[in-house]
Amino acid sequence: MDYLRGRILRTMAQNARLQGFGILVLCVLLYPAMTTAQQPALNLMPLPANAQLGSGSLHVDSVFSVAFTGYTELRLERARERFLRQLARQTGLPLSFKPAKSGKATLVVETEHASKEIQEVGEDESYILDVSTASARIRASTPLGAMHGLQTFLQLVDVSPDGFAAPAITIQDKPRFPWRGLMIDSARHFIPLDVVRRNLDGMEAVKMNVFHWHLSENQGFRAESKKFPKLHELGSDSLYYTQDEIRDLIAYAKDRGIRVVPEFDMPGHSTAWFVGHPELASGKGPYEIERRWGVFDPAMDPTNEKVYKFLDDLIGEMARLFPDHYFHIGGDEVNGKEWDANPKIQAFMKAHELKNNEALQAYFSGRVQKLVTKHGKTVVGWDEVLVEGVPKDIVIQSWRGQASLAKAATQGFRGILSNGYYLDLGWPAARHYAVDPMSGDAASLSAEEKQRILGGESCMWAEYVSPENVDSRIWPRNAAIAERLWSPQEVRDPASMYARLSFISARLEWLGLTHRTVSRHMLQRLAGPASPSQFAALRTLTDLLEPVKDYTREHTATAPPTSGTPLNRIVDAVPLESDAGRHFGELIDQFVASSCQDPAMQSRLHEQLAAWRDNDAILQPLAQRSFLVKEVAANSQDLSALGAAGLAALDAIGKGQPPPDSWKAQQLATIEQAKKPKAQLLLIPAPAVQKLIEAATAGGACSSTKP
Amino acid sequence: MDYLRGRILRTMAQNARLQGFGILVLCVLLYPAMTTAQQPALNLMPLPANAQLGSGSLHVDSVFSVAFTGYTELRLERARERFLRQLARQTGLPLSFKPAKSGKATLVVETEHASKEIQEVGEDESYILDVSTASARIRASTPLGAMHGLQTFLQLVDVSPDGFAAPAITIQDKPRFPWRGLMIDSARHFIPLDVVRRNLDGMEAVKMNVFHWHLSENQGFRAESKKFPKLHELGSDSLYYTQDEIRDLIAYAKDRGIRVVPEFDMPGHSTAWFVGHPELASGKGPYEIERRWGVFDPAMDPTNEKVYKFLDDLIGEMARLFPDHYFHIGGDEVNGKEWDANPKIQAFMKAHELKNNEALQAYFSGRVQKLVTKHGKTVVGWDEVLVEGVPKDIVIQSWRGQASLAKAATQGFRGILSNGYYLDLGWPAARHYAVDPMSGDAASLSAEEKQRILGGESCMWAEYVSPENVDSRIWPRNAAIAERLWSPQEVRDPASMYARLSFISARLEWLGLTHRTVSRHMLQRLAGPASPSQFAALRTLTDLLEPVKDYTREHTATAPPTSGTPLNRIVDAVPLESDAGRHFGELIDQFVASSCQDPAMQSRLHEQLAAWRDNDAILQPLAQRSFLVKEVAANSQDLSALGAAGLAALDAIGKGQPPPDSWKAQQLATIEQAKKPKAQLLLIPAPAVQKLIEAATAGGACSSTKP
Repeated sequence: MDYLRGRILRTMAQNARLQGFGILVLCVLLYPAMTTAQQPALNLMPLPANAQLGSGSLHVDSVFSVAFTGYTELRLERARERFLRQLARQTGLPLSFKPAKSGKATLVVETEHASKEIQEVGEDESYILDVSTASARIRASTPLGAMHGLQTFLQLVDVSPDGFAAPAITIQDKPRFPWRGLMIDSARHFIPLDVVRRNLDGMEAVKMNVFHWHLSENQGFRAESKKFPKLHELGSDSLYYTQDEIRDLIAYAKDRGIRVVPEFDMPGHSTAWFVGHPELASGKGPYEIERRWGVFDPAMDPTNEKVYKFLDDLIGEMARLFPDHYFHIGGDEVNGKEWDANPKIQAFMKAHELKNNEALQAYFSGRVQKLVTKHGKTVVGWDEVLVEGVPKDIVIQSWRGQASLAKAATQGFRGILSNGYYLDLGWPAARHYAVDPMSGDAASLSAEEKQRILGGESCMWAEYVSPENVDSRIWPRNAAIAERLWSPQEVRDPASMYARLSFISARLEWLGLTHRTVSRHMLQRLAGPASPSQFAALRTLTDLLEPVKDYTREHTATAPPTSGTPLNRIVDAVPLESDAGRHFGELIDQFVASSCQDPAMQSRLHEQLAAWRDNDAILQPLAQRSFLVKEVAANSQDLSALGAAGLAALDAIGKGQPPPDSWKAQQLATIEQAKKPKAQLLLIPAPAVQKLIEAATAGGACSSTKP
Repeated sequence: MDYLRGRILRTMAQNARLQGFGILVLCVLLYPAMTTAQQPALNLMPLPANAQLGSGSLHVDSVFSVAFTGYTELRLERARERFLRQLARQTGLPLSFKPAKSGKATLVVETEHASKEIQEVGEDESYILDVSTASARIRASTPLGAMHGLQTFLQLVDVSPDGFAAPAITIQDKPRFPWRGLMIDSARHFIPLDVVRRNLDGMEAVKMNVFHWHLSENQGFRAESKKFPKLHELGSDSLYYTQDEIRDLIAYAKDRGIRVVPEFDMPGHSTAWFVGHPELASGKGPYEIERRWGVFDPAMDPTNEKVYKFLDDLIGEMARLFPDHYFHIGGDEVNGKEWDANPKIQAFMKAHELKNNEALQAYFSGRVQKLVTKHGKTVVGWDEVLVEGVPKDIVIQSWRGQASLAKAATQGFRGILSNGYYLDLGWPAARHYAVDPMSGDAASLSAEEKQRILGGESCMWAEYVSPENVDSRIWPRNAAIAERLWSPQEVRDPASMYARLSFISARLEWLGLTHRTVSRHMLQRLAGPASPSQFAALRTLTDLLEPVKDYTREHTATAPPTSGTPLNRIVDAVPLESDAGRHFGELIDQFVASSCQDPAMQSRLHEQLAAWRDNDAILQPLAQRSFLVKEVAANSQDLSALGAAGLAALDAIGKGQPPPDSWKAQQLATIEQAKKPKAQLLLIPAPAVQKLIEAATAGGACSSTKP
């Protein structure tokens, strides 16, 4: 690892005080905010709070071994075996899984004491990792820190000129936020347990510690209830998790230092409950499992005492099943129509002086919160649950934004940010990465108020994900959010993030995640028996496409999408972020910045644009054979047109004489056409080609008449 | 499926008599041996005995359903669900798994009666599959045929211009041989059950019906014995299958119409037995698990009555665990050294007039065969067990060849061919495909003798396979062997085989097999954080490399390989057969056949050769960073030299004037260098470039002085 030697990395902007050992480490601040130039070749994600590279590296070969000292427990023994399996997988070395004696082990892990039996918010997760050329040591006060240290070590190990190795380094690390979560909606589309498990493996790798399990929706009630079996029997199309499976999953998560917070969304988003229990609803029924997406009318009846009796029993049952101290009651998006239409409810509102539906929902939330408290849990809810009079110990999960979160903090409420972390909106990783729970209104909070912002959660809403492609909708972008929530606030350079993300993304596939391979598999399926050159042409096109963003897919569907709509189209197969598109944009920016003078860049651009221009002719025969390829025939024509337009711009630049305005208008018309989404897909390089055209025209950066 | 319409496929060269239905189908022989030109675009593997395409196709969409009529059993219900899962996977359609009423189902499967409780050799596996534009029907006399029909249907479904569809067709199919096996050696390297299971899924897809499980070796005893627990406890490094796991695996196989034949190899190949039971051996002991590869001295003591008592108990235990009627006792490769060195054994041989070690082994085999028979099973053994006096009901598995097999048949023994089907030797699929159990000496057997040749088994010996890459050592080549054993003898066009193999190979990955993806994963691992262009250069090189063939790897290792040797090198990562290398060879052949006049081919060749020439410069920096890439630095230089030599030949051809002899000698020296294996890898295009050079030189096909 010569190329690392001697470099020093300091990513921490604060004094690092490692709890548990009582060691106070003073850290000189050399680089309060890192720039790309200072970026070390250290492929860690999340970046640690503090790291100092030594010289040389620790050889990792077949005799590598691990020993645990100090406090031990079965969970650590399993973590050791998991660590060795993962190390064996990422090196191909046949490691022995037998426990080693601590004196002889390559890596010694020293844990001071147990963590809480039920993992708590804000528990000590810190660790110190020392790697020398002879051995390595992890010190942590609790198993949580020890396991984080193991994950960091795994990321350090890579191939080197003389074997696998980890660089000599000292890392002192701890999280910035205590609540670093991923929410998976297994209700709209059921997500099988093996898929959930591999995503928990991914969470462990990037040090996330909360799995928020969205278990009920209009489209499904996914947890077995022994008290009210009609909930899952009639409300899930037989796609639900048994209580045994849930217990197993919780144990699996606990083994990885991950809490499991269940969400049962009420009083809205609950049609599936009413299939078996119409008596809970505010309308007349009967109800069927909802197949469409959106916000729907059915809602629980807040005026019916039987509803609270039912919820008391159900929450009690689920509170026993899920050991976590927190319990999510949803509370979002009630449209109130069933309440408006029910005279009994209207009468109740009048009698109790509840002025509007918001007040009625507040009444409901207050009642449910008391039930949750009675069963020993703290409530988590979406923004809507924060209304006057609710107890201060609830936690607000904000889908509305930082302002909402900051306001809650000033009122004394704890909160977690999800606005900006919705994975289903298809944003690029850099856009999520730029969202900080402590920026915006939160930046001006007092120190005490800031303490109330516990962290954040990325959200994987599941209208357009299937068990097949869900990994590719979560990863790798979720790793960037994980870094935002773990690493110091000053770690925010997107170029560094993307460089490391690409590395971590490959590593995550070793855990069994399929975010990279699934795209090729799905494209192969929809290409049928394509020739190699046809398939390559399909890849050239699809590598530059991204699904439309935000909620555009919903609004541009030719037929209303439902839970039965196949998710086998190109919009489902391509990653949500196009690496090739981003790289092309960077290349254009650099080229234009060179006043279009760099011949190497010009030649690369020419090659790429010519390939695009010629791509459609290769792809067309395939489009004739496959209805799913045919769907992107127009996108393919756009790409060819983009290639031709870009080549024309290069040509104009080469001639050294600005083309006429009519030329520009014609080229820009091509760009405008290419920018229009087709088949719910965006052609990512369109704006970059536009830049090239503008640079070529009179007054542009690369024109002979440039300003 | 317009492109299929109207074509007629007849692959059968014999009258097709579908048993069970008693239907005699007379089939006119139009094409006794198919040529490439007649090859239909029907991606079936193995090709059916008889198929006749209709017109139009059956639409396969989300409402597709299956119903079973006639005889049913739970196994068929599971087959239905598996079929639907697989169909959903390969189309991305959200299919309902609920049973359909037969009147309404898209596909109706009609089964006449049960198959045998314990699957027998030669049971009826035939089926008729009718697909019309409105519906499909499978008729079979037993569940075995019904399940084969389902697999054929799955292969028929593909993307079409207006949705997923299966072509209208009538298929009447039955296997050519009743014994179509795959042997996996889980003893030298332990193969976990999930890996075995997905290989059984692959076997089902290509209609193989015997899983031969090689369970004991010098390097490991992999089956739990409750009677003699020291066998697996001391002889397996804790890597063994419990009896419960074995029972589960057998049930899993039975569900797929696959018999499980266990092999316990004796009296040689048995060092691992002696770790816990040195009293069985002919030497003094103590013994340790063998870590090296090869043939070793330890062998059971055929003169010790306690050995037979032990084997009686063990075979009894295993005969109860494995329900199949056949039991494999190995019997191969005893070097006799321990026997020679043991005076007691020598005395015994003298006393019993056993002239040599072969006679002693025959004595042992005879005794063991009696034990196997006593426990109700028929013996299978390698060639060596066939000695004078053995009962006629044993089955010979021939690793020695067709002559040995034919000889056995003339003596009245049944046999299965494995010579020619050793997957570990790294042969191209076409070479295995050309091996026919009925060719060579077998071709001249009488009809009755031919009946004794039951089929064949491919063998995956595991010196150089790990759980990680074993799929890529078995597949896709094993599908070509499966076709050899199922389809009519006349189906033997390698071009057709390769076209279909490429298709089936992609399909097999939908079953969970990893033969295609693992290569890229392993290359990514050994490339570390390579840039995209470096990784592409590594792919360009490795796509043209194949591991050395036959037993060369053993003989060219720098250090003696052992079971602890990491299998993470490029030789372990690349597929055993290079598609790119084969395609390049085909292109050169076509180009030379055109007297090097085809400009399109010339331009393709030029592009490819230029890319090879320039590849090494891109790859070298990566070789400096990774010891595993560095290993192929010389191969990379060879490829660049090949590229340059090929370009020089194109140049000479273009000039229209034969180059001097000195030029030829220089180019051929380059080729000779490139042909030499390096890092245990062969550079596949070397002979093709040589052809181009020879074509360019005086008297060559593309020279102005051509003959």
